[in-house]
Amino acid sequence: MNLEDTLLMMPGPVPVAPRVLRAMSKPMINHRSTAFSDMYDDCRQILSDIFNTKNDIFILSGSGTAAMEAAVGCVTKPNDRIICIENGKFGERFKNIAKRYGMTDPLVYEWGDSIDLSQLEEKLQEGAKAVTLVHNETSTGILNPAKEIGKLTKEYGALFIMDGVTSLGGDLVKVDDWNVDIALVGSQKCLAAPPGLSIVSVSQRAFDVMEDMERMPYYLDLKAYKKSAEKSQRETPYTPAIPLFYALQEALHIIKEEGMEARIKRHCTEAAAVRAAVEAMGIEMLPDLNEYSHFSNTVSAMKAPDGVSGNDIKKDMLARGIVIAGGQERLSGKIFRIGNMGNVQPKDILLTIAELEIVLKKRGILSRVGPGIEAASDILDKL
Amino acid sequence: MNLEDTLLMMPGPVPVAPRVLRAMSKPMINHRSTAFSDMYDDCRQILSDIFNTKNDIFILSGSGTAAMEAAVGCVTKPNDRIICIENGKFGERFKNIAKRYGMTDPLVYEWGDSIDLSQLEEKLQEGAKAVTLVHNETSTGILNPAKEIGKLTKEYGALFIMDGVTSLGGDLVKVDDWNVDIALVGSQKCLAAPPGLSIVSVSQRAFDVMEDMERMPYYLDLKAYKKSAEKSQRETPYTPAIPLFYALQEALHIIKEEGMEARIKRHCTEAAAVRAAVEAMGIEMLPDLNEYSHFSNTVSAMKAPDGVSGNDIKKDMLARGIVIAGGQERLSGKIFRIGNMGNVQPKDILLTIAELEIVLKKRGILSRVGPGIEAASDILDKL
Repeated sequence: MNLEDTLLMMPGPVPVAPRVLRAMSKPMINHRSTAFSDMYDDCRQILSDIFNTKNDIFILSGSGTAAMEAAVGCVTKPNDRIICIENGKFGERFKNIAKRYGMTDPLVYEWGDSIDLSQLEEKLQEGAKAVTLVHNETSTGILNPAKEIGKLTKEYGALFIMDGVTSLGGDLVKVDDWNVDIALVGSQKCLAAPPGLSIVSVSQRAFDVMEDMERMPYYLDLKAYKKSAEKSQRETPYTPAIPLFYALQEALHIIKEEGMEARIKRHCTEAAAVRAAVEAMGIEMLPDLNEYSHFSNTVSAMKAPDGVSGNDIKKDMLARGIVIAGGQERLSGKIFRIGNMGNVQPKDILLTIAELEIVLKKRGILSRVGPGIEAASDILDKL
Repeated sequence: MNLEDTLLMMPGPVPVAPRVLRAMSKPMINHRSTAFSDMYDDCRQILSDIFNTKNDIFILSGSGTAAMEAAVGCVTKPNDRIICIENGKFGERFKNIAKRYGMTDPLVYEWGDSIDLSQLEEKLQEGAKAVTLVHNETSTGILNPAKEIGKLTKEYGALFIMDGVTSLGGDLVKVDDWNVDIALVGSQKCLAAPPGLSIVSVSQRAFDVMEDMERMPYYLDLKAYKKSAEKSQRETPYTPAIPLFYALQEALHIIKEEGMEARIKRHCTEAAAVRAAVEAMGIEMLPDLNEYSHFSNTVSAMKAPDGVSGNDIKKDMLARGIVIAGGQERLSGKIFRIGNMGNVQPKDILLTIAELEIVLKKRGILSRVGPGIEAASDILDKL
């Protein structure tokens, strides 16, 4: 199948707008020039609005995982206790990173289960340097209670490190109001730029902790990013991935033109349409919610219906030109996931649901095509 | 001045061929797909020939500095002694990275001076885990004796880590023959791709050392890269910068079409032309050579003539649409540098020399324009 004929409905990489792709074909510039500095500043300014923060913002040439490591590695010494909240694959990744730098105290739930805030509070009472959270757990489609966790974390004097990889740019994130000391996002999810860059915001409290560090990572040294970003330089400490900066700047301008409020509404409506559609098909969502958690507004994770593997659904959809995701690791085969990040439009959702109904009817899971499309349409039409 | 009207004659980023820029505008693909794996394999195969190695090769989504840290960080424990050879800015960077992971034992020379192999041997006799070397020191235009250092390092049982950031792809590098355990290069220098990727080759000896490590970097964990690159997966462990892979693949095909032998000859001839031209102008080269060192074949560093700063020469050239480099840090103002990396053609060298003569005549340094152009032309015409 031709690349240009497939529709990416995965939780990243997401379809990139033609004007974003075109932006990358500009010639290279010296990264120690005003042209680069102006582009860097422009991106950081728009990102501040998306993050809802007055904290410093830096753009790293590396994936979201690089940003996760920068966050943990720059504040953690070997004997520091880090509470890593895990209810999915990316929560687990934070734990695996934290193990390389300090003493992790994981708070582990089944992938897809909700976080129990009273258990977090018990752990915080024992003292901790930092808490890590994945706001929107891409692997399970759950939206974790960042605001409540930020409040608790502040109360106990720990740093709050939050992965907003699949929420920032698509869903509401209030870095300052939620007391997030280090927030991070990748370029290739809701920001709808190509993969390869990540963005971190860093509070003064986090910088104060870094003053006391002995061995920091080098490439991911956030103090070096701060120094280079100062008004006299407005640069990155090491060579930046220039074409990806061109693309990110263009993608951020698209976000500015749409407006974050409209963008969040679109994401929420599209995810609600997916949920209504699969409910009409008799398919269950994976997340087990409590009063503090929500279904994700950017990726929906569904249990594979009896008699069919999530991977088969993914394969059948791919043969029809729609790229959705299966489950990762322990969830492989058990679930399938539909992303609606970035530039995904209502018509893309409708097509995906239609193809899904066709695939499931061919597999003998559904008796007829239609109810899912209708349920999705009822919600999408409100946009 | 219009971006498209400037000629980049810096030691990176270098001008990128239009077909390389166009390659980046292909749509995003799933990085867990055969399409990505095939591209990754193709790149690694061509890179093996450029590196002259049978060692494993990985592509990191991060700059050359990230690759330097991967090399040092994956083999160094806090009490390990690392001999960091420094005769320029990037040698110093290796030392700064090594400090974050182990005990550095720097072997320091003035920036631009040659390395004394007997002093290295003395240090090796005291025992060391690894030796770091910058093969082609971009900051000073000196080509260090990698082959001889590799021989000594092997003799004393230490690992040899070599930064080939501005030699690989433009000059001769024989990773296996020279006993280089970890060699690395950035995408934006002699490979003539945009910045943002780096490549490392890793020997079995280096992997054996990694088995014994406790706290490795995470994003830059070379064992994770090895595991993901295996035949069953052919992937990167974390999300790769897809557009930059498109660009690198195209740039590597350009190299394959030219052939490494012809490419190295072109680089050597162009650098010789620059040296002959500045000699004709009465300008001195910065490097102080001994019997083991050479002038770089990819970047020439010249002392600023009496009465003018290197930065002024750079500024005057920029006003005429040619981007050359000044000196970095302690060499700022004292030198200027002309790169001839990647796709730089003989006519680009000739134009740069002509503009340089004009600039220096206007500054009252030269009495007439011409001798430099003629000297360069005599050499370039042999290509």
